[in-house]
Amino acid sequence: MAGLNFLDLKFLPAKEAEAVILPIPYEATTTYGAGTRNGPEAILAASRQVELWDEDDNWDPSAVVRLATASPILPEVSGPQAMLDKIKRIVQPWVSQGKFICALGGEHTITVALLQAMQTRYPDFTVVALDAHADLRESYDGSKLSHACVMRRVYEMGRPLTLMGVRSYSQEEHQLLRVAPRLKVFKARDLHTPAGWDQALEHLKGISGPVYLSIDADALDPGVMPAVGTPEPGGLSYSQVLTIIEILAQRGPVIGLDLVELAPIPGHRVSEFTAARLLYKALGYIYHQRRPG
Amino acid sequence: MAGLNFLDLKFLPAKEAEAVILPIPYEATTTYGAGTRNGPEAILAASRQVELWDEDDNWDPSAVVRLATASPILPEVSGPQAMLDKIKRIVQPWVSQGKFICALGGEHTITVALLQAMQTRYPDFTVVALDAHADLRESYDGSKLSHACVMRRVYEMGRPLTLMGVRSYSQEEHQLLRVAPRLKVFKARDLHTPAGWDQALEHLKGISGPVYLSIDADALDPGVMPAVGTPEPGGLSYSQVLTIIEILAQRGPVIGLDLVELAPIPGHRVSEFTAARLLYKALGYIYHQRRPG
Amino acid sequence: MAGLNFLDLKFLPAKEAEAVILPIPYEATTTYGAGTRNGPEAILAASRQVELWDEDDNWDPSAVVRLATASPILPEVSGPQAMLDKIKRIVQPWVSQGKFICALGGEHTITVALLQAMQTRYPDFTVVALDAHADLRESYDGSKLSHACVMRRVYEMGRPLTLMGVRSYSQEEHQLLRVAPRLKVFKARDLHTPAGWDQALEHLKGISGPVYLSIDADALDPGVMPAVGTPEPGGLSYSQVLTIIEILAQRGPVIGLDLVELAPIPGHRVSEFTAARLLYKALGYIYHQRRPG
Amino acid sequence: MAGLNFLDLKFLPAKEAEAVILPIPYEATTTYGAGTRNGPEAILAASRQVELWDEDDNWDPSAVVRLATASPILPEVSGPQAMLDKIKRIVQPWVSQGKFICALGGEHTITVALLQAMQTRYPDFTVVALDAHADLRESYDGSKLSHACVMRRVYEMGRPLTLMGVRSYSQEEHQLLRVAPRLKVFKARDLHTPAGWDQALEHLKGISGPVYLSIDADALDPGVMPAVGTPEPGGLSYSQVLTIIEILAQRGPVIGLDLVELAPIPGHRVSEFTAARLLYKALGYIYHQRRPG
Amino acid sequence: MAGLNFLDLKFLPAKEAEAVILPIPYEATTTYGAGTRNGPEAILAASRQVELWDEDDNWDPSAVVRLATASPILPEVSGPQAMLDKIKRIVQPWVSQGKFICALGGEHTITVALLQAMQTRYPDFTVVALDAHADLRESYDGSKLSHACVMRRVYEMGRPLTLMGVRSYSQEEHQLLRVAPRLKVFKARDLHTPAGWDQALEHLKGISGPVYLSIDADALDPGVMPAVGTPEPGGLSYSQVLTIIEILAQRGPVIGLDLVELAPIPGHRVSEFTAARLLYKALGYIYHQRRPG
Amino acid sequence: MAGLNFLDLKFLPAKEAEAVILPIPYEATTTYGAGTRNGPEAILAASRQVELWDEDDNWDPSAVVRLATASPILPEVSGPQAMLDKIKRIVQPWVSQGKFICALGGEHTITVALLQAMQTRYPDFTVVALDAHADLRESYDGSKLSHACVMRRVYEMGRPLTLMGVRSYSQEEHQLLRVAPRLKVFKARDLHTPAGWDQALEHLKGISGPVYLSIDADALDPGVMPAVGTPEPGGLSYSQVLTIIEILAQRGPVIGLDLVELAPIPGHRVSEFTAARLLYKALGYIYHQRRPG
Repeated sequence: MAGLNFLDLKFLPAKEAEAVILPIPYEATTTYGAGTRNGPEAILAASRQVELWDEDDNWDPSAVVRLATASPILPEVSGPQAMLDKIKRIVQPWVSQGKFICALGGEHTITVALLQAMQTRYPDFTVVALDAHADLRESYDGSKLSHACVMRRVYEMGRPLTLMGVRSYSQEEHQLLRVAPRLKVFKARDLHTPAGWDQALEHLKGISGPVYLSIDADALDPGVMPAVGTPEPGGLSYSQVLTIIEILAQRGPVIGLDLVELAPIPGHRVSEFTAARLLYKALGYIYHQRRPG
Repeated sequence: MAGLNFLDLKFLPAKEAEAVILPIPYEATTTYGAGTRNGPEAILAASRQVELWDEDDNWDPSAVVRLATASPILPEVSGPQAMLDKIKRIVQPWVSQGKFICALGGEHTITVALLQAMQTRYPDFTVVALDAHADLRESYDGSKLSHACVMRRVYEMGRPLTLMGVRSYSQEEHQLLRVAPRLKVFKARDLHTPAGWDQALEHLKGISGPVYLSIDADALDPGVMPAVGTPEPGGLSYSQVLTIIEILAQRGPVIGLDLVELAPIPGHRVSEFTAARLLYKALGYIYHQRRPG
Repeated sequence: MAGLNFLDLKFLPAKEAEAVILPIPYEATTTYGAGTRNGPEAILAASRQVELWDEDDNWDPSAVVRLATASPILPEVSGPQAMLDKIKRIVQPWVSQGKFICALGGEHTITVALLQAMQTRYPDFTVVALDAHADLRESYDGSKLSHACVMRRVYEMGRPLTLMGVRSYSQEEHQLLRVAPRLKVFKARDLHTPAGWDQALEHLKGISGPVYLSIDADALDPGVMPAVGTPEPGGLSYSQVLTIIEILAQRGPVIGLDLVELAPIPGHRVSEFTAARLLYKALGYIYHQRRPG
Repeated sequence: MAGLNFLDLKFLPAKEAEAVILPIPYEATTTYGAGTRNGPEAILAASRQVELWDEDDNWDPSAVVRLATASPILPEVSGPQAMLDKIKRIVQPWVSQGKFICALGGEHTITVALLQAMQTRYPDFTVVALDAHADLRESYDGSKLSHACVMRRVYEMGRPLTLMGVRSYSQEEHQLLRVAPRLKVFKARDLHTPAGWDQALEHLKGISGPVYLSIDADALDPGVMPAVGTPEPGGLSYSQVLTIIEILAQRGPVIGLDLVELAPIPGHRVSEFTAARLLYKALGYIYHQRRPG
Repeated sequence: MAGLNFLDLKFLPAKEAEAVILPIPYEATTTYGAGTRNGPEAILAASRQVELWDEDDNWDPSAVVRLATASPILPEVSGPQAMLDKIKRIVQPWVSQGKFICALGGEHTITVALLQAMQTRYPDFTVVALDAHADLRESYDGSKLSHACVMRRVYEMGRPLTLMGVRSYSQEEHQLLRVAPRLKVFKARDLHTPAGWDQALEHLKGISGPVYLSIDADALDPGVMPAVGTPEPGGLSYSQVLTIIEILAQRGPVIGLDLVELAPIPGHRVSEFTAARLLYKALGYIYHQRRPG
Repeated sequence: MAGLNFLDLKFLPAKEAEAVILPIPYEATTTYGAGTRNGPEAILAASRQVELWDEDDNWDPSAVVRLATASPILPEVSGPQAMLDKIKRIVQPWVSQGKFICALGGEHTITVALLQAMQTRYPDFTVVALDAHADLRESYDGSKLSHACVMRRVYEMGRPLTLMGVRSYSQEEHQLLRVAPRLKVFKARDLHTPAGWDQALEHLKGISGPVYLSIDADALDPGVMPAVGTPEPGGLSYSQVLTIIEILAQRGPVIGLDLVELAPIPGHRVSEFTAARLLYKALGYIYHQRRPG
């Protein structure tokens, strides 16, 4: 994977960047489907075809924001804890230097490490996660660090957590959803009603302080994002996801971002093109707020 | 196919079940595309990833309804009549015992046999069929028992027939559509207008007595259900199909169900995941009405 | 490719036809993805499954309009100019005879030659192009006749040009969009708002004189048309494209049509089925206006 | 399928031909895998890339032999007997006129009808069949006309039958193999030894009278012919199959030929290219013997 | 995966079996490619098409040997040690009861646990491993229990180890190969020469005592076994692998077997069919020796 | 494509290298199939999994030879002449500096430019080309610079040309083969006989002076190299190709190398792995001769 740069930009060392695209091709706790380890490279390859000009805000974010694509974090296979430690060790210094992190998974578990790295600098963060599944299980397949538990671990960090696009969870997770005080859930079906959608956007606008955004590819409808391990019909549209990001960016600082769980389908490239576009749009929205503009 | 159980539930003999998932991997009269015989197994495999908790009605249908996955009905290749006889012979006793049948095709022709088995117990049934094609031809490729004639055969059983999502038919079928008294058609394009949609739902609510629901996978839009033999653009959304089933279930007894004509695309699993979800949602809606709740 | 006829109609020599389906499997300047040369054959193959009856206007266009499928124009590989000359040489006589041309690409560059052939007979034409990309670059990969420049060349012909569904362009193209007097652009995102959509339809209704319609497959949303070289999320729906064509046909003469840049995905046939349907619907709309009905 | 001609040759009506390429996209009794109905068209499409010059015998068979590609025999879906009757009805007149038949399947069952058509003119024929499976079952899936029974039906016609490349059969078939007097079997494993191979070639050379050759694609090793329903490792090499055909042609008249059970793998075209080449080589060998040369 | 039985045999509880087919869909340390977790199910599905009659030895092993397909060992995702412990815990009792274990991977790492379970009962075992890679690294990606280290761990168990078909290793592994006293390597290129092949077979014949056979799918040539993570050209033929197994079985007791690292290619099923055949042939050879026969 | 390095080696500027891996993703004159433009990147990606240690000669060529992967030569789409000029302009200086060029196609046409760049420094070169097709046509699809003419253009450079593995050519090419004095052809079928093979190797050993080696991927058998535009059965084995290269290297200087016409099959990666291996083996053989060793 050495060498593919996001948007085919000229190489920039991570230390000189203000935003770091970070490939993490990690896949060890996946239970079904396979191939999220190939996600980062597919997204980077597709990103080379993304037009640099942002047609919404009429600027070229890549010409203004110093973007670096870091070397991928190679898997540590002795167990998820070792891998999360490695991620945290690498990301922590960048966070300390105020860099924006945009991670490409790989499985969702990596979000835990990314947030731990964020927490020292941004103790008051809120997490907004787009996901078809609640990922709130206590443990799964013998580990508390499985992809199916990632939001539980995130929730335990003691900060507000908003889940959007959810349409699949277990009874155990349902119980938690009902009582967890810092947890707010917007189910996909509700987001497809005008009232539910407005309510969700109001909620997002009301979040104060730094926000970390985690996007599981399966939050999007499998019609437009088929390359996921467990497709769930009835997902968010591309336009909905764009709006969510736009509103989060207008609202206040977005401190980090990940897009995970994309497992490329050989020969059917829509998913990675959509992901690459989405990430660049997200960077555009986020940095457009930070600039005079 | 021996052994895959819907939802990966523990094995239950059909005779102890109240609802029987019945794989019928039959494909003999298909004219284009191929692979519906692989549909049942793909749906069963995908169903293992479906969450058991119903997030709409907050219950676990699988824990309440005694669901069995029957052994697949193996093809009888001497001709469609022999196959339909075989299906009827197997299904009839279950119908007599009041079991709910949920058949997985295979080609659409099987619906004829399923309805014949239903008719002795439910002589006053109405059929609601979701399909991109009218399937109302008198005969096709030398047989009156072709998939392209299935709704003609169904109509000849003398009961009301409602077709929804139709967007492709011949002049011959068009003539029939205009004059057949017990036939009601809602074209896909009309269902995409608010007025047409409301009118269709009103019609469904007005159906009295037992309803049998036949879902040809190509009724759904190929964007979300690409794995069909003859994709027709402009189809129903997943959400529309859910609503149709929900309304049918709230209205009165649904006595049987089939989902047919899914021909898996290797490596692109969205279709079977959508089908598996849809079937479990359908069972949930149907049984939620039957229970105190 | 010799021999596949659109809709599997009986062979008709081009000279006896009033409308000519013209396969142009040309692909030489494509920069990413590959396979548009396989587009025409895939569309023709899929068209064999398209029902001949038009369920909207209740007629069979194929029984009324004399449709011929011409032999494909084989690639001239010495460079794009030679190929465009060849296309023009073949198409010009048909245009002179008043035949309607419906070209199947192949890469988008062919539109230039088709329009040059049109111009002698219809000097007052307007071009309406559906495309995800503006294709307005001055030159690309060392040629002014690249697919990425096709609309620039078209614009230079001195006639009004309307682009619809655009969601990707460079800064250079952005500058041109702002100042070019005969150029009207409707971005995809605007077309997804009720106001933007109405405005676009009003604009189309206001076009007087002959219209040539060029459809780049990537104008449609990749969820329903994944088989394109550079999928761009957020595209037009099938229903929107139908409506655009319907309005253009009702408004006045449509003199020619092309559908380009479809690069089939082996095993996933939704794109070519959608294209085949779309083309036949377009022919139906166009000829329905020309007839007593 | 209308219109693809073998080798992309100019259309010739079957009645003017001396050899007829006959597509029979029939698939109704297949038990596993699917897609042999797409075999004929894939082979014809691939044949367009086959070089017309025969580099072994230094001639162009297509320039000398009047080859026609007949319209495909469309499936009769009321049962295998009706389909076989249809095939026989179409082929019989051609056989009477002394035409050579080269059929493209579709499932293997069609060989029965082809041989019945041959038998009136060539009562003393011998059948040589290349197949991974013995296909000698008495009946299968409720029919005596299943693909798994085809060689049993052939054997019952009372003529010598030689099976080559066999490497899979049931105990029932094993019993028959041991006692059937007119049946000669060369197992694949034996053909891979020098002694076994020589013995087989000697046997072929010793066959007198007209020979009909039936090639099930799975006779070839799946490494070079993966597109079959039930791949069996350890099959014949392409070179072995060529040699078998060459020897049969040198020995005496070959009266007919079929290549069946090829089920194309989308995107992996080696199988159909190999089949197309093989068929043209076979025609070359057969007609080279018939000519002064 | 619940429910697929090897060869589609009737269900038999593992405790009543003399040979246990054991699916282990584990994949956590894979570095490239993905999908070995789908290997066991693909092999079991393909095995349903394998003919039960052994055409070499003229018997039906499945009718004589009591074969059970155990439930798959579900992944333990907290790290490879936990997974190996789990495998050992499950397999140990079966080994104690003298059952033959035939494991289906999943990644190669599982062989370590299987051998540890074997060792108590068969302290004097020899391991024969077929593999394209030496897998002799000390550690890899931060773990000593990676698939790339599996043969190093096996070697450290203190027993003779024979590697066959090897054609890829690092300098570090090269050093070990040269000096390790209990290690014997037959490179693929040597096995393709008559002398090298004879020498290898002589070596196998000379192994005394119980043998455990581990087959990495990539030992076979990728032409016949393409579904592997890292295809290496120049591999063993199917026939060579059969011969190796046959000789091992004739020589003395084979106490266990695994076939690992098969990562199915959607739509291209040759690999799993070859694997299923190979396994059943192996069982046939092994049990044919154990019986009067 | 920016950034993938052959073998995943550390980046080295081309000017500091002694051997340059040069990706040329050019595809403009291809007539069938598509995707050779994706060949270079697929080969580079696969090469990252190639073991650096050469197990034949027991050394690590990558540690000794200064290898650089140059930036890809981007297509010039105004016509083949412009593209060939561009290639020549880039490669000429490297040749002057004595660098070894190893080009990755892209279509075969590029070989002409590479040889023109070679000729000034090595006027007495001999070309050895491995190819299924003779590629000796005078012109094709309107150009003398088509892939189907490449060997004709090479031959016209006035130097000896040896073609190996050929098994497909036209009558026109056949005539040329018989009379061209500097042209030597070894047909694939002959290379598969012991006598023919020996004769070919003797011929190779007898070539004096510098040799340029051009490998069309379709020279290899499609069983092991399926990812080509026009697969031709009966090709060379991987082992044969290795031997040819080994002998050429032992014989005298090999001055350049290309591997062209690989069109990746999504999801089936055997071809690019085989190509990557082959190229590294070739470099190893070539440089092993140049060193004390």
